[in-house]
Amino acid sequence: MLSTMQDVPLTLSRILRHGSVVHGDSLVTTWTGEGEPHRRTYAEIGERCARLAHALTDGLGVRRGDRVATFMWNNAEHLEAYFAVPSMGAVLHTLNLRLPAEQLVWIVGHAADRVILVNGSVLPLLAPLLPRMGSVEHLVVVGPADTSVLEGCPQTVHEYEALLAGRPTGYDWPDVDERDAAAMCYTSGTTGDPKGVVYSHRSIFLHSMQVNMSESIGLTCQDTTLPVVPMFHVNAWGIPHATFMTGIGMLMPDRFLQPEPLAEMIESERPTHAAAVPTIWQGLLNELDARPRDISSLHTVTIGGAACPPAMMRDFEERHSVRVCHAWGMTETSPLGTVAHPPGGLTPEEEWPYRVTQGRFAASVEARLRGPEGQFMPWDGKAAGELEVRGPWIAGAYYGGAGGEPVRPDDKFSPDGWLRTGDVGVISPNGYLTLTDRAKDVIKSGGEWISSVDLENQLMSHDAVEEAAVVAVPDEKWGERPLAVVVFKDGADGADGAGYEELRTYLGDRVAKWQLPERWARIEAVPKTSVGKFDKKVLRAQYAAGALDVVTL
Amino acid sequence: MLSTMQDVPLTLSRILRHGSVVHGDSLVTTWTGEGEPHRRTYAEIGERCARLAHALTDGLGVRRGDRVATFMWNNAEHLEAYFAVPSMGAVLHTLNLRLPAEQLVWIVGHAADRVILVNGSVLPLLAPLLPRMGSVEHLVVVGPADTSVLEGCPQTVHEYEALLAGRPTGYDWPDVDERDAAAMCYTSGTTGDPKGVVYSHRSIFLHSMQVNMSESIGLTCQDTTLPVVPMFHVNAWGIPHATFMTGIGMLMPDRFLQPEPLAEMIESERPTHAAAVPTIWQGLLNELDARPRDISSLHTVTIGGAACPPAMMRDFEERHSVRVCHAWGMTETSPLGTVAHPPGGLTPEEEWPYRVTQGRFAASVEARLRGPEGQFMPWDGKAAGELEVRGPWIAGAYYGGAGGEPVRPDDKFSPDGWLRTGDVGVISPNGYLTLTDRAKDVIKSGGEWISSVDLENQLMSHDAVEEAAVVAVPDEKWGERPLAVVVFKDGADGADGAGYEELRTYLGDRVAKWQLPERWARIEAVPKTSVGKFDKKVLRAQYAAGALDVVTL
Repeated sequence: MLSTMQDVPLTLSRILRHGSVVHGDSLVTTWTGEGEPHRRTYAEIGERCARLAHALTDGLGVRRGDRVATFMWNNAEHLEAYFAVPSMGAVLHTLNLRLPAEQLVWIVGHAADRVILVNGSVLPLLAPLLPRMGSVEHLVVVGPADTSVLEGCPQTVHEYEALLAGRPTGYDWPDVDERDAAAMCYTSGTTGDPKGVVYSHRSIFLHSMQVNMSESIGLTCQDTTLPVVPMFHVNAWGIPHATFMTGIGMLMPDRFLQPEPLAEMIESERPTHAAAVPTIWQGLLNELDARPRDISSLHTVTIGGAACPPAMMRDFEERHSVRVCHAWGMTETSPLGTVAHPPGGLTPEEEWPYRVTQGRFAASVEARLRGPEGQFMPWDGKAAGELEVRGPWIAGAYYGGAGGEPVRPDDKFSPDGWLRTGDVGVISPNGYLTLTDRAKDVIKSGGEWISSVDLENQLMSHDAVEEAAVVAVPDEKWGERPLAVVVFKDGADGADGAGYEELRTYLGDRVAKWQLPERWARIEAVPKTSVGKFDKKVLRAQYAAGALDVVTL
Repeated sequence: MLSTMQDVPLTLSRILRHGSVVHGDSLVTTWTGEGEPHRRTYAEIGERCARLAHALTDGLGVRRGDRVATFMWNNAEHLEAYFAVPSMGAVLHTLNLRLPAEQLVWIVGHAADRVILVNGSVLPLLAPLLPRMGSVEHLVVVGPADTSVLEGCPQTVHEYEALLAGRPTGYDWPDVDERDAAAMCYTSGTTGDPKGVVYSHRSIFLHSMQVNMSESIGLTCQDTTLPVVPMFHVNAWGIPHATFMTGIGMLMPDRFLQPEPLAEMIESERPTHAAAVPTIWQGLLNELDARPRDISSLHTVTIGGAACPPAMMRDFEERHSVRVCHAWGMTETSPLGTVAHPPGGLTPEEEWPYRVTQGRFAASVEARLRGPEGQFMPWDGKAAGELEVRGPWIAGAYYGGAGGEPVRPDDKFSPDGWLRTGDVGVISPNGYLTLTDRAKDVIKSGGEWISSVDLENQLMSHDAVEEAAVVAVPDEKWGERPLAVVVFKDGADGADGAGYEELRTYLGDRVAKWQLPERWARIEAVPKTSVGKFDKKVLRAQYAAGALDVVTL
């Protein structure tokens, strides 16, 4: 039986229209480092979106489905591209400013971007690569720039404000199918080529509603949010889209992401909420210790991207009255998967064990844990499995390139279409997720999983240990067993290997006996990736090559 | 260009599964009038939904798309039907307990309900009608009942708990299309047959997200809500569906809607939020004056269904520290259209002018005002027009009966599919809606609209006036002109019509000159409808028949 409801698609032009009309007075403030910040109302943003759409279509010939890339910081102009490009039916492709040059060139080619909008301040990063970006016809420079670096650039170069000037302030946004592509973002995977996630109008619309739900971030038009998380990183966690639904004020940090300017903009612009990864907040805490500032306007900060040390959460709360809220997600999940709000009716102390988890799943996100033998694991807070998720804003494939079919690698998607997150963890009976390891690092021993991260954390809590990494190595009997690679503090280990014995005894008091490593090796420093994480691939290769001095206990 | 997102439908079974698993500990408490209230966890509700679905399919032979009706108060069992019936692919039809018998019989026949779930306490209302409800095969009696009234009833009669007993506590909820019918509700229109609005899984899912958004009600799992608004009335404003998305506790009043038990259950169960029409709250205020109770647990009450007198809003806030929040909607809008949250940055006093409006539109609801000549009116806070709305949870037609096509009467839907609300009002530049009249009562005079309600309120603010109604009457020159029909207080009017002159002068200071009525009549009492509203149809008929003693000034 059919309903009698209107069939109205969930599109970004609806969010843009709502925000720029109903919340036309709300402000987007962009920090400029010196002098007054730039301020623009939602109504002005709406008019400028129309101008930008005219410029891209009438001026540059962008058509439905074409990719328009941005190489930009968080600022009002980036927000204009966020709404104008998808609303006119094209696809916004946010480029990560921090990617290595080779990956950038590859990604732009794979997406076949026709236009790049680039902030003047990062033009020197992009300019040398432009001759190798053959799909790109137009370069639009936003903000002050030294354009001498563009000498010999094969693209037609435009200045953003000049391009917008004189264009109409209204645009008849086309009807698009809510399942059409709206935006894309490539994951910077550690192995293989980057993979493109293509968000739809529908997925972004639903995700924006979720961000504004009480179980997620849930800000109101009384709030101003400071998204420190970059707009080139999973749509700044969906905050820019969500704000336009509810009229939330925005404070855009532009390129000023260092602790000092962040503290300064919080004190002077008084945002009530902010979102960033833990390292940013640790930097801010240190800065406030060195040079106290008034950050009392903040009531909540949302932290994601990595687990936040509980001590830091307490620091924020006890010293600055800022509540820290943990969230988990990834590029493939738009990103809101879980948010760590505690259950009702608890004392603040009782809430802590819930608040340090990754949190509870959003209502639209289904989850399951897949154990080492492919079986589904119970939600008992103990049984570990790889997290798989399903939902209307979860990726079901990767972009296959122009004309190509979507790609569904087996290690990323289960046969029934659920996303394999690559994260291993446990889920409590009341739905709280605690991640314990990455699937590629977990040790599969006799049909059970041993968390490498657990063993590492226990080892590193020992006074004699500077660093410790635990990796899986092949074992005839058990399939895999843990190898503990330890960096001892100066003079802390006995010359005869007594250090290993002591650590093994120490671990024995803290983890199950069958998890205790038999193989041990010492090393000068744990090899690390470019972003500072343990590079376990290297350790496994060194072990395989016999390059480690392994002692078996 | 296609997105790479999963194609996951927005269905009620997803909400049910989420609530009963992730928020399995949350409580639904049903008031019983005496002794301990009944308490059931979301997890238990989930299991009982599975049992109910098995009972309806395996036991009673209900198939996909069949209509299952409820004739019930707000209680846990009604909530079970809310989720089980649509999740198994059938359609929940909530019957209004307060409808006249003839309408009930008509509606049940029109919807072709196969099953009715009925609370024992209202069985005597339904029993005499059952012989005339030919489509109904099964009657399921919920709760204590005197079943002797069912003697001779042609349906098979079941007892709810007996029907559920022993059934499996899990159900493999089928995949349904998100656009399929989930629930239906008939409007009790004042003219013509009732009209059926059929909600889809998609519309209810999206509406539930909206209810939980900060710009609407936005409760968290720290809250307990008391929906006094009946579940047979536009899905209790969507609250029962929304709670399962976020784990909000529910306090169900069952049949105890009188001020005294309401005050008692608030004091003893300590809900943080409640929702009802203004008359309920006025009754509660009076009750609290007579017998003070502790209602300090309430932080907000949402009021809809009619405009709330500002004095009452202030009373609640100043005497009981309860914030009253206005909302507007109708059966055809699911119902959330607008909610009156003030803009940011105002003082409490400055917020009042916004809080007494109908509020701002939800992000998914588009609005426009259609003037007397069919033209679109500006959002300037002055130009009045009939409100038309569009959105994914707004009706685009009425149910056409089994096998019939949906019905789209011209006076209810514009040619491009927008819903004509029948409400006339103005919208401020920042999107606040203020309703001023019903479209059928507004006076169309020389291409402009005169609000009958405005004139009535002004007239009734005069000391000599007991009641006053203003209706449109035909006028050769202007099309229509206002006729003022006045009930004077005892002895207040001069015998020679001086009363009219004085009122006209009084009005002249308060409304535009061209709006002043020329035609005046006195009457003993304004005729009223069954729900106590002015019956302007009767007045217009009396005027046309020459039955009023009209004086022209």
